[in-house]
Amino acid sequence: METRNHEKVTVMKQIKSRLGNIGNAITGVGAEARRLAKEDSRRIVHAFKVGLAVALVSLLYFFDFFFDGFGVNAMWAVMTVVVVFEFSVGATLGKGVNRAIATLLGGALGFAAHDAASYTGDKVQVILLGLSVFVIAVVATFCRFFPKMRTRYDYGLLIFILTFSLISVSGYRNDEVWDMAYGRLTTILVGCCATVLVCSLVRPVWAGEDLHKLTASNIQQLGTFLEVFGGVYFQEEAKDDKNQVLLNDYKSVLNSKGVEDSLTPLQHRAKIKEPCKMIISESSSALRELAMGIQTMTCSPSRDVHVVNAKSAAAKLKALMKTGLWPDADFLGIVPAVAVASLLTEVVLCTVKINEAVAKLASSARFKKVDRGIKKELSLDKMQRTPSIEGSHINIVVE
Amino acid sequence: METRNHEKVTVMKQIKSRLGNIGNAITGVGAEARRLAKEDSRRIVHAFKVGLAVALVSLLYFFDFFFDGFGVNAMWAVMTVVVVFEFSVGATLGKGVNRAIATLLGGALGFAAHDAASYTGDKVQVILLGLSVFVIAVVATFCRFFPKMRTRYDYGLLIFILTFSLISVSGYRNDEVWDMAYGRLTTILVGCCATVLVCSLVRPVWAGEDLHKLTASNIQQLGTFLEVFGGVYFQEEAKDDKNQVLLNDYKSVLNSKGVEDSLTPLQHRAKIKEPCKMIISESSSALRELAMGIQTMTCSPSRDVHVVNAKSAAAKLKALMKTGLWPDADFLGIVPAVAVASLLTEVVLCTVKINEAVAKLASSARFKKVDRGIKKELSLDKMQRTPSIEGSHINIVVE
Repeated sequence: METRNHEKVTVMKQIKSRLGNIGNAITGVGAEARRLAKEDSRRIVHAFKVGLAVALVSLLYFFDFFFDGFGVNAMWAVMTVVVVFEFSVGATLGKGVNRAIATLLGGALGFAAHDAASYTGDKVQVILLGLSVFVIAVVATFCRFFPKMRTRYDYGLLIFILTFSLISVSGYRNDEVWDMAYGRLTTILVGCCATVLVCSLVRPVWAGEDLHKLTASNIQQLGTFLEVFGGVYFQEEAKDDKNQVLLNDYKSVLNSKGVEDSLTPLQHRAKIKEPCKMIISESSSALRELAMGIQTMTCSPSRDVHVVNAKSAAAKLKALMKTGLWPDADFLGIVPAVAVASLLTEVVLCTVKINEAVAKLASSARFKKVDRGIKKELSLDKMQRTPSIEGSHINIVVE
Repeated sequence: METRNHEKVTVMKQIKSRLGNIGNAITGVGAEARRLAKEDSRRIVHAFKVGLAVALVSLLYFFDFFFDGFGVNAMWAVMTVVVVFEFSVGATLGKGVNRAIATLLGGALGFAAHDAASYTGDKVQVILLGLSVFVIAVVATFCRFFPKMRTRYDYGLLIFILTFSLISVSGYRNDEVWDMAYGRLTTILVGCCATVLVCSLVRPVWAGEDLHKLTASNIQQLGTFLEVFGGVYFQEEAKDDKNQVLLNDYKSVLNSKGVEDSLTPLQHRAKIKEPCKMIISESSSALRELAMGIQTMTCSPSRDVHVVNAKSAAAKLKALMKTGLWPDADFLGIVPAVAVASLLTEVVLCTVKINEAVAKLASSARFKKVDRGIKKELSLDKMQRTPSIEGSHINIVVE
């Protein structure tokens, strides 16, 4: 009796622990889902948009049996919605156009092949159709390896092979094939239209806008990183809590510098401190100005001032290094400080290049000219670096 | 009359130039196709394999009308072949399994939803089915954002939504739906089997094998590059034509060193020449040995000797730098030479790490132990760096 009881307890414990495991797994998935949704709330919106489009077109298919409009072909509309719906409007449009054109071309060519083969005998017909499907599939598949085709028309080529095979080998009589091809094309167009409408009207996502924000926030991050690096490298105290938070944010990046830091005696750093700090502050100010300019599509003249200041500081640093401040120092000990100095001069060169590129952008996109006196800092919550932006797009297509 | 003639001549010239343009375009496409085929001949084989599979399954569809086996559903087989056929066997298998399981799950769930809804009134049925399609689409679409799901089951989730919508909203009576679901599943299985058979039996491509070759050739290239760099940096003459060819191969990489080179006076280089050359020759020998070992799945003890030699050369170089060979030299002028020296010591550290990694690989993959006396050099045509390997796979899936 006691063993029985003992067994029961053991089984109960096992069940409990398994239930606990399942519970943990569910909690884990829930936490991951919350994280994904928080990182980019547009993901939830996207899921609901897809649900809406699929439900709409499915009901079309369902009612079809009462009104007898599209026939069995209506399922192509459901298929189109599921396959074509992408995260951003541009990608959806690209896929929809690809599918529509490929269906049209493949259908036309398939119809022609079917028609041509129907004038021959049964056996010849089979051989001709099999051969034509083979040749088209070989050529179109090889075309998918062309880099230009792959980036833009990969999906279209797939649909082209598909439609061609389906239509040409359908085995129907000519007029039936015509009906089938016509039905397939119209329902695919209905599906494409429904998809594009839902995608572009309900909280649309524009890849170009994301790129715009991403560029601005990346440049802003460069500036911030530079400043934080300067603070850490020259051993300054974190001024307030905000800085401390930033420091933690960049710790992973800074960790890679750990080895180098430990090799550099502090006295060497002190010698190049003045011009280096000047370079850092001016470059990061310039970068922040540039980021703000891209974000708000304005251009302020003060960024040029910062760039000029950074350039003159770099010249000073170079002169300082040429005069040889360390004639008797241990050679290996100096190298890291020299490396930092030369990297900083390169940072200035890069800042100048970024400045030129933004100036070009500003002139072609006709940024407004403003004198920024009041708004000195970009609100950080708007400009937070979001790796999620790339993560949300299954595939960023630049149209 | 003359104006007429003149006009004719102009028109003829225009036609000629246009024909010329078209001719040039065709030649360009032909050249690109030849280049793609030459880079990786398996691309042509792949195209023919797809053609074969599509033609085979299409004929199945075609004969279907005489034998009445699969019905209209047979087109799902054609579809499956076109969509599932990938470059490597692993990716094809992954997609096929995804498609089969997703169809099974989606079909079962769709059938259940359809069955449950059929017990209610007409209006309630429509609402219930629409709602279920909406919910399933929302949940499955959101699941596609989970990183783990995206890498492995992205395609399956798509097919799941598709099959569920098609089956649940089909509007047929229950027994008809069962026929439809059964037909769809069997034809998709036929398509998957045909695809996997053709893909794995006719000149199969294994992504793992490519990775194996790629790793070996990458390490080999590192070694070769190091040697060529040493030759160029220390201004040695190219010994023979083969070296000259290699130099041209790496010109693009070396061009980036142009600026640095011009800054380094030759006398500084001469001072560090001896240990640097030692490091270069020993490291590159070790890397070549390692590459050959990975390629042939053998391990030879001589690579350890090379690594030890490289380490001691690095120690010598460090000592040389510490003694301060250049007390009176222009400081800025020395920096590039010092940079090269410190990069080379880092190269030695990396070589040591690669050696350790390969040793681990050798013990877990049980490489054969051999003493390499005869075969001293890997045949280069087998080991040529092929960026094409990545380019050929539309998507390398590590299963």
